[in-house]
Amino acid sequence: MIIDCHGHYTTSPRQHEAWRGEQIAAHSEGRAAPPRPTVTDDEIRASIENGQLKVQQERGTDLTIFSPRAAGMGHHLGDATTSEAWATACNELIYRVCALFPRNFVGVCMLPQSAGVSPRNCIAELERCVQQYGFVGCNLNPDPSGGFWKDPPLGDRYWYPLYEKMVELDVPAMVHVSAACNPAFHTTGSHYLNGDTAAFMQCLTSDLFKNFPTLKFIIPHGGGAVPYHWGRFRGLAQDMKLPPLSELLLNNVFFDTCVYHLPGQELLTKVIPLDNILFASEMIGAVRGIDPETGHHYDDTKRYIEQLPLSAGDKAKLYESNSRRVYGRLSGQIAKQFG
Amino acid sequence: MIIDCHGHYTTSPRQHEAWRGEQIAAHSEGRAAPPRPTVTDDEIRASIENGQLKVQQERGTDLTIFSPRAAGMGHHLGDATTSEAWATACNELIYRVCALFPRNFVGVCMLPQSAGVSPRNCIAELERCVQQYGFVGCNLNPDPSGGFWKDPPLGDRYWYPLYEKMVELDVPAMVHVSAACNPAFHTTGSHYLNGDTAAFMQCLTSDLFKNFPTLKFIIPHGGGAVPYHWGRFRGLAQDMKLPPLSELLLNNVFFDTCVYHLPGQELLTKVIPLDNILFASEMIGAVRGIDPETGHHYDDTKRYIEQLPLSAGDKAKLYESNSRRVYGRLSGQIAKQFG
Repeated sequence: MIIDCHGHYTTSPRQHEAWRGEQIAAHSEGRAAPPRPTVTDDEIRASIENGQLKVQQERGTDLTIFSPRAAGMGHHLGDATTSEAWATACNELIYRVCALFPRNFVGVCMLPQSAGVSPRNCIAELERCVQQYGFVGCNLNPDPSGGFWKDPPLGDRYWYPLYEKMVELDVPAMVHVSAACNPAFHTTGSHYLNGDTAAFMQCLTSDLFKNFPTLKFIIPHGGGAVPYHWGRFRGLAQDMKLPPLSELLLNNVFFDTCVYHLPGQELLTKVIPLDNILFASEMIGAVRGIDPETGHHYDDTKRYIEQLPLSAGDKAKLYESNSRRVYGRLSGQIAKQFG
Repeated sequence: MIIDCHGHYTTSPRQHEAWRGEQIAAHSEGRAAPPRPTVTDDEIRASIENGQLKVQQERGTDLTIFSPRAAGMGHHLGDATTSEAWATACNELIYRVCALFPRNFVGVCMLPQSAGVSPRNCIAELERCVQQYGFVGCNLNPDPSGGFWKDPPLGDRYWYPLYEKMVELDVPAMVHVSAACNPAFHTTGSHYLNGDTAAFMQCLTSDLFKNFPTLKFIIPHGGGAVPYHWGRFRGLAQDMKLPPLSELLLNNVFFDTCVYHLPGQELLTKVIPLDNILFASEMIGAVRGIDPETGHHYDDTKRYIEQLPLSAGDKAKLYESNSRRVYGRLSGQIAKQFG
């Protein structure tokens, strides 16, 4: 089975995202948000059959770990109440996708984060999504301010209530920022990658995994700048008299394969232990075009991996068993959804 | 000749950095700064002979393009007046190093930037350093706020007065942030690399090089996350209907080789045209230890390059001719300093 651990519902029916615009406009004008729009099963089916399911089939992958659109989370907009209503709406849609296509999608939730609001606020929604919807993880935004980086780093006790619940539920987080509202950053060009690198370094300089030895983070987009600068990070840890990165972080931190050219994938799989790499594409995401150098979509990451000198066993780790291990509830959920 | 285009005076005599502490303390208490301390030629000699010169000789490099300590620039501290006094002091020391060791160091200045203060403010110091000191470039901080990213992106007209002067003087800028005062970021672990990636994307999304076709930026630390995600950046530009990156940016943007392991250097030289890569180490900088996997210093970047499958002509570009081309005044200054 080929599991893509990083997919967002970027093709959701138009009225869903339109409602978000209305909700935020109402909030800024001090009005109540309008009622949420109806989204029919047929509309969801069409959005998936012409979107992620079609691409899954074209590329020969089997299952996508699926979550709300990352740039759409917009934790810098509105307040804790709007974030909660929006997260509820987005997660419910993901649940309906998984219910309609149980053999193709397993859910991961967004959290109702809000800049400066305690992550404790996210616990109820996480619990609901895992227990009622059968979701297997969450997306955790390390910068709910959208590019101004005002919240404490991930190693801070500020985040601990959420981590306690994640550990209790046995769900990992993909550490994924949302849209940048800071003009210094381009959302998918620099803010995403910078969020990945910042998050990794926040972990490296904290005692987070001493305190939560079973907490697991997936750093998306191939780990931002981290694998390319693996020697730098090894050296920084060494200068700080910390244990080797393998010991310090690699029981808890994993990287996905959202790197959109072959040399990057070569580096990733050469530098990072294969047990720490999870197959992913973020298809219909940041980069949608076809690479004229290959004639294939930039984000068709399976094609790169197929060109790497990996054994069948190594590929099985990347494609399936690492995801089943990192997402502790995944195998159970697959069994349930496959019926 | 082997030219290392990225060296900072990290070993400057203690009283120099101590004065900076006193200056900032005085500023925050509303007092005048104490007079600047005396630094003798012998003290400078000792700091260099036991520092960068020793390492140059051990590693077999010839000339370092040398500038004030990057983390020490601290443009988020004090105000425009303290920044000006500090830049003057730092640049003067670099000038004295170059005068004492004219065959080993050529100068690059820091700029008296200050968060929210027009870069126009930097022109006089740049002019002074180039015309009186014979410096060949400047370090430009794209985030004088130290990790809060409050100034406009590099493509904004806000920066144009400085660019006009750079073009007039024929000096490039290394785009290099300073210390992070935002607890979300580790200075050398995430802020430096994120600054590089953000700066590249700011260039990609602007018409900067249309307006300044001869302006040149060096993105340090191997370009942050950029070469590792070169496919992503190519694809993003393509989705935006921009020309290929080679045409859009590579007449103006260059990367150094401050990548501290062999696989990273392999990727860099495989992905980025060799005409756009400048040899550099940032020695006695971010990472000071010896890599137990190689038995050599992490930042001994020449050792990695020597292991790459490059022709003698390619190495000559990396080591010398690219730097002479990008730093338009370098060959003239070398001729002058070598006498």
